[in-house]
Amino acid sequence: VPEHGAPSGDGARYAEPLTATPDVPRRSAAEEARTLVASTTVAALATLSEDGTPWSSLVRFATLPDGAPVLVVSTMAEHGRNLLREPRASLCVAAGGDGDPLDRGRVTVVGAVRRPDDDAPLAVYEAAVPTARGMAAYTDFGVWVLDVDRVRWVGGFARMDTVTASDYAGARPDPVAPAAAGALAHLNADHADALLDIARALTGHPDATQASATALDRFGIDLRVATPRGPATARAGWDAPLTSPGQLRAASVELVRRARVTG
Amino acid sequence: VPEHGAPSGDGARYAEPLTATPDVPRRSAAEEARTLVASTTVAALATLSEDGTPWSSLVRFATLPDGAPVLVVSTMAEHGRNLLREPRASLCVAAGGDGDPLDRGRVTVVGAVRRPDDDAPLAVYEAAVPTARGMAAYTDFGVWVLDVDRVRWVGGFARMDTVTASDYAGARPDPVAPAAAGALAHLNADHADALLDIARALTGHPDATQASATALDRFGIDLRVATPRGPATARAGWDAPLTSPGQLRAASVELVRRARVTG
Repeated sequence: VPEHGAPSGDGARYAEPLTATPDVPRRSAAEEARTLVASTTVAALATLSEDGTPWSSLVRFATLPDGAPVLVVSTMAEHGRNLLREPRASLCVAAGGDGDPLDRGRVTVVGAVRRPDDDAPLAVYEAAVPTARGMAAYTDFGVWVLDVDRVRWVGGFARMDTVTASDYAGARPDPVAPAAAGALAHLNADHADALLDIARALTGHPDATQASATALDRFGIDLRVATPRGPATARAGWDAPLTSPGQLRAASVELVRRARVTG
Repeated sequence: VPEHGAPSGDGARYAEPLTATPDVPRRSAAEEARTLVASTTVAALATLSEDGTPWSSLVRFATLPDGAPVLVVSTMAEHGRNLLREPRASLCVAAGGDGDPLDRGRVTVVGAVRRPDDDAPLAVYEAAVPTARGMAAYTDFGVWVLDVDRVRWVGGFARMDTVTASDYAGARPDPVAPAAAGALAHLNADHADALLDIARALTGHPDATQASATALDRFGIDLRVATPRGPATARAGWDAPLTSPGQLRAASVELVRRARVTG
């Protein structure tokens, strides 16, 4: 019986690079987790119901600068009553997109909720979830901060890691992430030739016949490459890690220039 | 301090019908729950972790004819290990769409998982989640059926109900639901005049100036109507409850005909 996620099974599916290529850094698991949590205000909350059943519910949330989620929930809802009785809880945040959601990233942040000491978390929540403005004035609503003590990140099938509370709090969301989907769509729609030049010159697949971009982050770009030896995955790095979405265009132009000088 | 969901607050926002209108049936809460669960294979699972924390995770699932969810999970994942130790669990399924997800339906089904007695649940799972075919052959994967003993349905802000296990098992998903989104888009794009005729003649808003369809089910169609008295919500019923998506076109044509004869 095969082992789930054994490296030999995964690696055998892709053509290897023909030449040595530089190792392009990837986001740490903590950074992946912070990036995912910062990407949305919709999550699944797990709380403990009175009969001992873990209770799954839909919530909107906001994120404090240290990554702690903020919730505003009603005691008219079971999750709101659960938090009053048992502060242990977790939030699961999943990446959006097409296709099988289990092929995409998701993260579970675990901890205990507490009432905040000041109004800052509510202000952060109301800025992130405008439809919730004024809700906290209703007597049945309460503001909670989830103090995170453990994080589990899954990047897709057989790619996962546990993140400590301090690594999670110390990491920052990838500043390029909010622009990544738009940039990917633009590159694939209008610059297939440039992506192919990058794949050929910079990723060890000089015989590539086609390339498309599958992901993009502050360190570089992931490619799916077709070669006569079969499909391959590849990665090319920007000259330096980016610190804002505004740098994406110049970094892409420079990457293509480097490919064409090299190739 | 206002009360959350007090009827006076909600009702005051909409113009009332000017004439008496027939009461068009709505799906029961059990039927809403079954329809939502049948609409997708993606859910949030809540299980109990070893340290007592409710654990929220993303899963794919399938649905048996009685509405019981089927899961295939790995013990390499925390939720898989949790189910081995503690069978109590719940699944939250949320309706897709645009805008605030808290304005749309979601349902939590609660119960205890068990290993199935035969291969039928796995066959149902593999049919519903084709990417999972063969996964159950790996030693770390296990098939589970969630025996449902309680259901909580929330239709949107301040619209909710609890459903018993027998009502849930006895209800059926709305047969029209798989075609509802496409039919709505078609009606709004190409038949705004017909929707306005329906709103004027059949829903008590003879002064309506605009109407769009917001939802559609086996009993009828929900409208959002503009009137000189302010916005209104309205509902018009088919001649008889529908039993298949193929009946939608004829039922819509008949509804418009009735509006034009009446109006």
